[in-house]
Amino acid sequence: MQSVDVPVALLGYGTVGAAVHGFLSEQGDEIERATGHRLRVVRALVRDPARERGFDPGTGVLTTEVTEILDDPSIRLVAEVMGGVDPAGDYVLRLLESGRSVVTANKQLVARRGAELFAAAAGAGGQLRFEASVCAAIPVIKVLRESLVVTNVHRVLGIVNGTTNFILSAMGEGRSYDDALAEAKRLGYAEADPTDDVAGHDAAAKIAILATVAFGSRVPLEWVEVEGIEAVRREHTDAAAALGMSVKLLGRATLADGHVDVRVGPAFVDAHHPLAAVEGPFNAVMLQGDAIREITLEGPGAGGIETASAVVADLVSIVGTTGTGFLQDDPVWRELERMAPGELSSLWYLRLVVEDRAGVLAHLAQELATEGVSVARLVQQPENGNAVLHVVTHDAPAGRVEAALTAIRALPESRGEATALPVVSERGVGGFP
Amino acid sequence: MQSVDVPVALLGYGTVGAAVHGFLSEQGDEIERATGHRLRVVRALVRDPARERGFDPGTGVLTTEVTEILDDPSIRLVAEVMGGVDPAGDYVLRLLESGRSVVTANKQLVARRGAELFAAAAGAGGQLRFEASVCAAIPVIKVLRESLVVTNVHRVLGIVNGTTNFILSAMGEGRSYDDALAEAKRLGYAEADPTDDVAGHDAAAKIAILATVAFGSRVPLEWVEVEGIEAVRREHTDAAAALGMSVKLLGRATLADGHVDVRVGPAFVDAHHPLAAVEGPFNAVMLQGDAIREITLEGPGAGGIETASAVVADLVSIVGTTGTGFLQDDPVWRELERMAPGELSSLWYLRLVVEDRAGVLAHLAQELATEGVSVARLVQQPENGNAVLHVVTHDAPAGRVEAALTAIRALPESRGEATALPVVSERGVGGFP
Repeated sequence: MQSVDVPVALLGYGTVGAAVHGFLSEQGDEIERATGHRLRVVRALVRDPARERGFDPGTGVLTTEVTEILDDPSIRLVAEVMGGVDPAGDYVLRLLESGRSVVTANKQLVARRGAELFAAAAGAGGQLRFEASVCAAIPVIKVLRESLVVTNVHRVLGIVNGTTNFILSAMGEGRSYDDALAEAKRLGYAEADPTDDVAGHDAAAKIAILATVAFGSRVPLEWVEVEGIEAVRREHTDAAAALGMSVKLLGRATLADGHVDVRVGPAFVDAHHPLAAVEGPFNAVMLQGDAIREITLEGPGAGGIETASAVVADLVSIVGTTGTGFLQDDPVWRELERMAPGELSSLWYLRLVVEDRAGVLAHLAQELATEGVSVARLVQQPENGNAVLHVVTHDAPAGRVEAALTAIRALPESRGEATALPVVSERGVGGFP
Repeated sequence: MQSVDVPVALLGYGTVGAAVHGFLSEQGDEIERATGHRLRVVRALVRDPARERGFDPGTGVLTTEVTEILDDPSIRLVAEVMGGVDPAGDYVLRLLESGRSVVTANKQLVARRGAELFAAAAGAGGQLRFEASVCAAIPVIKVLRESLVVTNVHRVLGIVNGTTNFILSAMGEGRSYDDALAEAKRLGYAEADPTDDVAGHDAAAKIAILATVAFGSRVPLEWVEVEGIEAVRREHTDAAAALGMSVKLLGRATLADGHVDVRVGPAFVDAHHPLAAVEGPFNAVMLQGDAIREITLEGPGAGGIETASAVVADLVSIVGTTGTGFLQDDPVWRELERMAPGELSSLWYLRLVVEDRAGVLAHLAQELATEGVSVARLVQQPENGNAVLHVVTHDAPAGRVEAALTAIRALPESRGEATALPVVSERGVGGFP
């Protein structure tokens, strides 16, 4: 097979961009063996061409003018690794509209503007690939689109943010939230301003993309119920440990009766569940479907090299399938409705702080029973003169649990706290009676 | 896009074949949306057309004559789901030689005759895909070939046999080997004659295929050092638990200094390692490479439906890439040499039974030191009037450890037993001093 050079442009040449260039240069033989082509970076958009770069871009590659990419008809393949929704989104849109294929590592862009970008790609005959936008090198998009094509995936559960997983793992080992966050910053796992991670926004964009691809129906970011980890305290991680579980920030997407529920929030995960073993900055995604029961993919969910390796795999896949566009149309082919947020069923952990006197337990049990919330497991402990009840429920809809908690908070013997966290224990193990 | 019917033939119509037919019929819309084609089963080779089938084959589909498939030029795509090396291998070879594309779920066939089959496919322009031959629905072949194209995978670690993992999990919970095996048979996880699984042959074929694809160099079955689980006793699983580990049957493939080592055998896995959490009949494969650190894929590694879903994904991938043959040439592109079996380095667990008297420990320590085997952790316990030493070593080559054990067995104070199992603890955690 005659090798043909394929010119590639990069939007952005930071850590990821430089690593992409490094791979395309140093792994050129591997790529040529796989595709019959050699991918060469001919142009890279940057703000400051004088800055030091992780991989020498070569003479004449760096440019500050996006038109040198947009208006160059020889460039058919572009990787967007600059980040941010503006102006990256408009650049990508214009590239796709003009028939170019684009690989992006930009989760916010895919989550917010996916619909118009895929429409532009389909209209002009190019491809848009986005493996690196979710969990870096973990190939969950390819697996969903190509390997699980006949499996009707109905649930996606993911630890999709390494910062919060690191913090929660450290809290599980006995550290305070503030301590764990400070350590995450020291190790480079958390930004100076960690809000995007700890408030769950980063995870929300990723689970929205995963839900869209898994269910074939657009899940807008606004549908995602988001709760971060700021309210998780040692009381929760200690209670989880006592129950043989650990606290994880989970992205959860569920398709039931034709309705979609997508949320991000802390959850109790049973020690026997595959996601419980995912520690520190690692990510993992579990896909549940008819034919496969479940497949879990785990690996580093961030990092410049890891992200770049996913970008390169997408570039290679585009070069390898040009002409067939195999499985790379808009992943959306139907319009599913959103499930009312109160309808999602789950097991729940409840933490209830009440006055320590006779009859209280009966009142609590009555409020739970009124809402049809059934108790699977209960531990009562004295704490600072009050009683703390740890309850694990059987399956119950979120709305019924919330209503029971509201009623419990209004009881005269309540000491104010009545909180619920979902419990994930797929395999029905872990000491549940 | 105009939908085009693609006629498909099946070699075999047992559980897997019927499930493939079921998927192609019932998920026809999904497949057409992905590829623009509708795959129709037109012929299926069986021994007994009168037998009851899991999915109605339809009139005129079943045949006992393989020539009705081999000699029908309208059939361009065939799935081999009959199993066995003969006559399946010759049928597949003749199909590939005549330019047809073939999907196979047959690990023995790929492991034993891969070289000539890939050569035939390359010669005549068809594809040979084999995702289902390793760990059923876990898409490890596609991930290795397409997603990790630039990552230089240098290590594959896998729990690739569900029968043995179920038995070892049960032993970890306190059951005897015989009990656990009987339970596995009752639940359908073990065959009436379980030799192929418990002796490690099934795992050997799978790890040979994985090593071949991961390293791009043919790994013949004869290279695989195979040890089954028949010699694992409760002493081992108890000792593992005491050290915060569990016993797993691991397939391990290592590429170091241009040499390949591939083996199957029981190993101690640290509780914090991702593979430790893989319980019961599940499979998992960890891929370690330069750019990705490690990616682990976990899921059901067997089952008719699961295997069929992987066969269908391969059929769909072939239809979607016909003309480009994307990444589907022979995965072998270089010839690496085999590492001498004694050279593979690892941590080791040693179990040494010796006379309980002064000076014995010094002798043992001397024999280990003579071979350069350094002790990381040691626990001595009395047992039936003897002393049992549990030793975890630092990194040491297999040959040196074996030499030390031979010397220890020859000591006058030896009570005969001196065995070694590798320890897997990638992340340097789990209480090692």
